[in-house]
Amino acid sequence: VISAFPVPGLPEIAAGDDLAELIVPALGDPGRPRGLSDGDVVVIAHKVVSKAEGRVRRLRDVEPGPEAIALAREQDKDPRLVQVVLEESSAVIRATRGVIISVTHHGFVCANAGVDASNVPGEDTVLTLPRDPDASARSLRARLHELTGALLAVVITDSFGRAWRVGQCDVAIGCAGLAPVEDWRGRPDYAGREMHATLIAVADQLAAVADLSRAKDARQPVVVVGGAGRHVTAQDGPGAAGLIRAESDDLFR
Amino acid sequence: VISAFPVPGLPEIAAGDDLAELIVPALGDPGRPRGLSDGDVVVIAHKVVSKAEGRVRRLRDVEPGPEAIALAREQDKDPRLVQVVLEESSAVIRATRGVIISVTHHGFVCANAGVDASNVPGEDTVLTLPRDPDASARSLRARLHELTGALLAVVITDSFGRAWRVGQCDVAIGCAGLAPVEDWRGRPDYAGREMHATLIAVADQLAAVADLSRAKDARQPVVVVGGAGRHVTAQDGPGAAGLIRAESDDLFR
Repeated sequence: VISAFPVPGLPEIAAGDDLAELIVPALGDPGRPRGLSDGDVVVIAHKVVSKAEGRVRRLRDVEPGPEAIALAREQDKDPRLVQVVLEESSAVIRATRGVIISVTHHGFVCANAGVDASNVPGEDTVLTLPRDPDASARSLRARLHELTGALLAVVITDSFGRAWRVGQCDVAIGCAGLAPVEDWRGRPDYAGREMHATLIAVADQLAAVADLSRAKDARQPVVVVGGAGRHVTAQDGPGAAGLIRAESDDLFR
Repeated sequence: VISAFPVPGLPEIAAGDDLAELIVPALGDPGRPRGLSDGDVVVIAHKVVSKAEGRVRRLRDVEPGPEAIALAREQDKDPRLVQVVLEESSAVIRATRGVIISVTHHGFVCANAGVDASNVPGEDTVLTLPRDPDASARSLRARLHELTGALLAVVITDSFGRAWRVGQCDVAIGCAGLAPVEDWRGRPDYAGREMHATLIAVADQLAAVADLSRAKDARQPVVVVGGAGRHVTAQDGPGAAGLIRAESDDLFR
């Protein structure tokens, strides 16, 4: 049995905020009967992590280079935004119809390198992904453990589009204390035959359930998922880096 | 708040079985305090739907054609299995390292056209996807409604790999009574700015939470998800066909 509870009442996050110190008291808000327990997974939208880490760019301070100017003209986009996208990318793999799909420095393949203009206060600012989301998850996990004593996992998420399918799903871009992939290869299925190619992207499925539990326009960036304790580990583990398909294994670049 | 309860105690499914008649009594098993209520989403792994619909092929009855023989030799696979994959496909888009990625007749892009050899009793048989999973979902929804009176949604799932990311996530291949995509385009975010490109693949996120709630080797093909009632609709709606990206919109074929 899985349950997902959005945490109500978080304030607007500013650079330098200690997220754990804001999350823990919010868990005790009226209407929320539970705190954090061993085995819980705290799923957090990257936007608040990025804000706490000051990963905000003011477009008026961005000087677009020639590559950004050319790509922006071609795709009918703001050249300063494109400059930020290029700075956040190691490679652009598609650019067409106003969409730039690139590989971020972390290795994620997504639109606009995860650079986001929505839900950011101030007309002229954009948010970038955390510099090292797995490290962010480890820090947050350690602070939450200090404050609550609970053995839990942290997953940091973003909404990514998918090849071939309409719409976005939330996925893990950082995690700690979690086995991000459950490997059933080689184990027998219930008919006794070996299961092939069964690697389950647990961290991404946790991101999806958290997103499902909140309204998109509500300030509910943090969701506590219960019932997934068998995926929670004492060690921080490989992080969401373990979800990145190596370029050499990738059929669609 | 989202919750997901796997339904225990379903028997092995045979061709011709009425799934709704098997699911409803299982909901009342000891340890399961609830039946079905308005707004619940019944998420069901396609394997049991395919079995009930007799979508089983015996490999000894399959005669591979020249295309299947050539592709099987190239990819080191059973030519009879490849023949079934080709029959289930409208196009092969990648074939390399033993993996065949094709477009099914429904329009889904996935490995082996969804043809599956695991969890099928009998060494020589494979399961194919339901012929029309949205129609299967509509029928099951109607029968569950007859038996319980509840206004609910049905989602039929499969596990698909993803471009760029390691591991599989469950996705919707059929649904009824559900808005498969939630469209936030044009609505203001909480900072009052218009949100761009925010189409949430709700049906796929429901598939993910259901998968997360069950053990892969348990006989738990059916999961009841509560708390997602705002996505449940009186009409059957567009089905999972609404999640298929048109080839003309697709950057990665």
